[in-house]
Amino acid sequence: MMIAKGKGRGILVLLIATALLVVLACASACAQGAVAQGPTSHQDPVAPILVALGLILLAAKLGGEIFERFRQPSVLGELVFGILLGNIVLVNPSWNFFEPLRAGQITEHWAVVIDALARIGVILLLFEVGLESTVSEMRKVGLASTIVAAAGVVAPFILGYGASAWFIHEVPASILAVSPGFSIANIHMFVGAILCATSVGITARVFRDLGKMHLPEARIILGAAVIDDIFGLIILAVVSGLVVAAETGREVSVGSLLEIGAVAFGFLAGAILVGIYAVPRYLSIMARFRTRGVMIVSALLFCFLLSYLANLAGLATIVGAFAAGLVLERVHFKEFKEERSLNELLAPVTTIFVPIFFVMMGIQVRLESFADMNVLGIALALTAAAVIGKQVCGLVVGKGYDRLSIGIGMIPRGEVGLIFASIGKSLNVIDASIFSAAVIMVILTTLITPPLLKLSLQRFERRKPGSRA
Amino acid sequence: MMIAKGKGRGILVLLIATALLVVLACASACAQGAVAQGPTSHQDPVAPILVALGLILLAAKLGGEIFERFRQPSVLGELVFGILLGNIVLVNPSWNFFEPLRAGQITEHWAVVIDALARIGVILLLFEVGLESTVSEMRKVGLASTIVAAAGVVAPFILGYGASAWFIHEVPASILAVSPGFSIANIHMFVGAILCATSVGITARVFRDLGKMHLPEARIILGAAVIDDIFGLIILAVVSGLVVAAETGREVSVGSLLEIGAVAFGFLAGAILVGIYAVPRYLSIMARFRTRGVMIVSALLFCFLLSYLANLAGLATIVGAFAAGLVLERVHFKEFKEERSLNELLAPVTTIFVPIFFVMMGIQVRLESFADMNVLGIALALTAAAVIGKQVCGLVVGKGYDRLSIGIGMIPRGEVGLIFASIGKSLNVIDASIFSAAVIMVILTTLITPPLLKLSLQRFERRKPGSRA
Repeated sequence: MMIAKGKGRGILVLLIATALLVVLACASACAQGAVAQGPTSHQDPVAPILVALGLILLAAKLGGEIFERFRQPSVLGELVFGILLGNIVLVNPSWNFFEPLRAGQITEHWAVVIDALARIGVILLLFEVGLESTVSEMRKVGLASTIVAAAGVVAPFILGYGASAWFIHEVPASILAVSPGFSIANIHMFVGAILCATSVGITARVFRDLGKMHLPEARIILGAAVIDDIFGLIILAVVSGLVVAAETGREVSVGSLLEIGAVAFGFLAGAILVGIYAVPRYLSIMARFRTRGVMIVSALLFCFLLSYLANLAGLATIVGAFAAGLVLERVHFKEFKEERSLNELLAPVTTIFVPIFFVMMGIQVRLESFADMNVLGIALALTAAAVIGKQVCGLVVGKGYDRLSIGIGMIPRGEVGLIFASIGKSLNVIDASIFSAAVIMVILTTLITPPLLKLSLQRFERRKPGSRA
Repeated sequence: MMIAKGKGRGILVLLIATALLVVLACASACAQGAVAQGPTSHQDPVAPILVALGLILLAAKLGGEIFERFRQPSVLGELVFGILLGNIVLVNPSWNFFEPLRAGQITEHWAVVIDALARIGVILLLFEVGLESTVSEMRKVGLASTIVAAAGVVAPFILGYGASAWFIHEVPASILAVSPGFSIANIHMFVGAILCATSVGITARVFRDLGKMHLPEARIILGAAVIDDIFGLIILAVVSGLVVAAETGREVSVGSLLEIGAVAFGFLAGAILVGIYAVPRYLSIMARFRTRGVMIVSALLFCFLLSYLANLAGLATIVGAFAAGLVLERVHFKEFKEERSLNELLAPVTTIFVPIFFVMMGIQVRLESFADMNVLGIALALTAAAVIGKQVCGLVVGKGYDRLSIGIGMIPRGEVGLIFASIGKSLNVIDASIFSAAVIMVILTTLITPPLLKLSLQRFERRKPGSRA
């Protein structure tokens, strides 16, 4: 009875969603008409931004809702509805309102703004992720997590490189047009890097929903995911550095590779040191301010500063945002005369900005690229590499642990894989079809984890009924 | 002793501010250098946005803080620090990081994004202002407030028109270049419109700080300010409509004038009717969503929709945002499973967006335009017209009220005057020097109100010691 009711509701939601999709399509067509009116109508330049932002937020919430009702993470819904928004143009060529967001070089003003909001969204997301973990927590998770994380980064990188080398034999023409003399090894390395980092959010949620957050496996996976993020960011820095070096004609040596790795590591270490000494002082000055909203603005200023410095150091801005979040701790904000915590204040802001990033990633997926069987092959090969690569995590932990569950728990790539893919796209290392394949990999790995993890945990408990209460 | 301590603190803050201004200038120079690196360095396009956003938020909070310490509204500080940021280029021509924000036609991508954030900021501000007043409250304030509001709109419009006609004898060349055959009467009307609307925030704060919120004068002024906003928005719609009609070569008749007024009035009335019937249904559907952040997103979607529709109807987007706020009431959100109220959720978002608008207005003021004595004359004449025009409000209320305090309480133009001026600028009706003069008028009217109101209230109480407890 409960299931039937749940199912009925799910179908109801699906129906509402379909109806609204039609509305979306119409709105898209209308909006496009409105935009096409041109400057003589004295349209406020903010009007097309409001339309795009409104449609994106609506799609995000609809998609998130439907996927949550089917016990799937809402981020997947945002992604899938983004794919729908971006690809309604396949249904009717005049529903091309979102095309300016899919161009290789975004130039239309409203699209530039939406793109910037998505980029700010991912910075805020990494800042929030960083805020959730503290430096002292990182010290505690210890050796087991570090080993799991290291194995979970190396194996998928190698497998990803291999899968890419298997399918991609020549540099796509669109990349050669921009960077002649581009080495194909750069693509393989970037694909490998996309497969490295685990998105722990989904796994954490499954453990919580099953009431198994206290298991040692859960703690190992959560710890590994944090360290994993750091390894992933360093790999991203190294790979991006190699690509840029290659494009600007500098020679790539083992020395330069080590140098980029050292800069990335040094930046993170430096940020943490700065955090320990300077942040309390900075925040105690800001806490004396009496004007409204100083607390959230102080935190954002620090996040923007580190993101910018990371970029100056040749790293991705998200590395800085993550470091900023890692450094800021709850105790720093005690002096502020603010009733609510920083996380509570940030929540409404990230609720608006973060989904823009995921819907935007979906919009940029070109479904027509899967008409090419090769792209479909890449997508499936990447998914296989992503799944198999993380099983090594289970093999390296000591005896007595649920190895299969650890391996499965590390599978989802979620936002981190997407972020890496979008950086690869903006660096012009991977083209639209590899980007689309990466998005499909992210969707598949994220979709299979919750049911597999549930089964594997049940199986382990059945085998060892006495060992866990 | 208390004063000395307060003074010492004020000086301390001033010193800190000066030091930070130097930092700002350096940062501006560095930032400009960073931006100038060009595309070969593979800079993330979000990096210059983060720098500009960071500097703007820092300036806003510093400015707001210093002005609040001197018991002035923080919005003035944001404006003044914006003027400082925009005009540091006068100190050193290479500190021109903010110049792209001051161009007549903003084209640089990061500047387009900051401009859009400022525009979204003003939409959110008007939405928040609208949320603070409800339809039923508006019905209650009754006749006295309506008469005060009407008088306070008509008199400044006429005086503003006169002041503009006195000083401006020919259409500036920069406007003629875009719209040949532009009538000078359009400028006078727009200047008149800028002087219409009262910004009640400042007056409300003075009444609250003095513990006089219960006085009938306070209620009349607050009521009048709400109606005043509506009159102002309708005047803005009519004047903007005339300007657009003139530019596109359509004939301007009394009929078309009435038509635009009817559209504006009809839009507001329609929005209110829709609000009463459709909003509860819309929100009770959205309240069934279980995904995160639906409440704030539902409210924003409604705000964006009405803003867009207002623009389609030929009105300013802010008219729609205000109408959306007016229609949404606290009771509509009871069904949402959210612990916090909509205002609490919106606060962190507006804390970030709204100051961008005010700093941006300051940045666009060109101090060099005041080297022209004529511009200085316009600024002073507008201020005089603004102050004298609102004294009519005191004359039209019945006997027994503190007429002088009512007149003074209506003086501040604050954000509303600024918003109108920025719309005039983007419609290309007023040029940079009139815009600068309008900003100075806003600053002066806002600065003089608190001390004058305090004096006038004390004087009235001394004369009638028995009548008020």
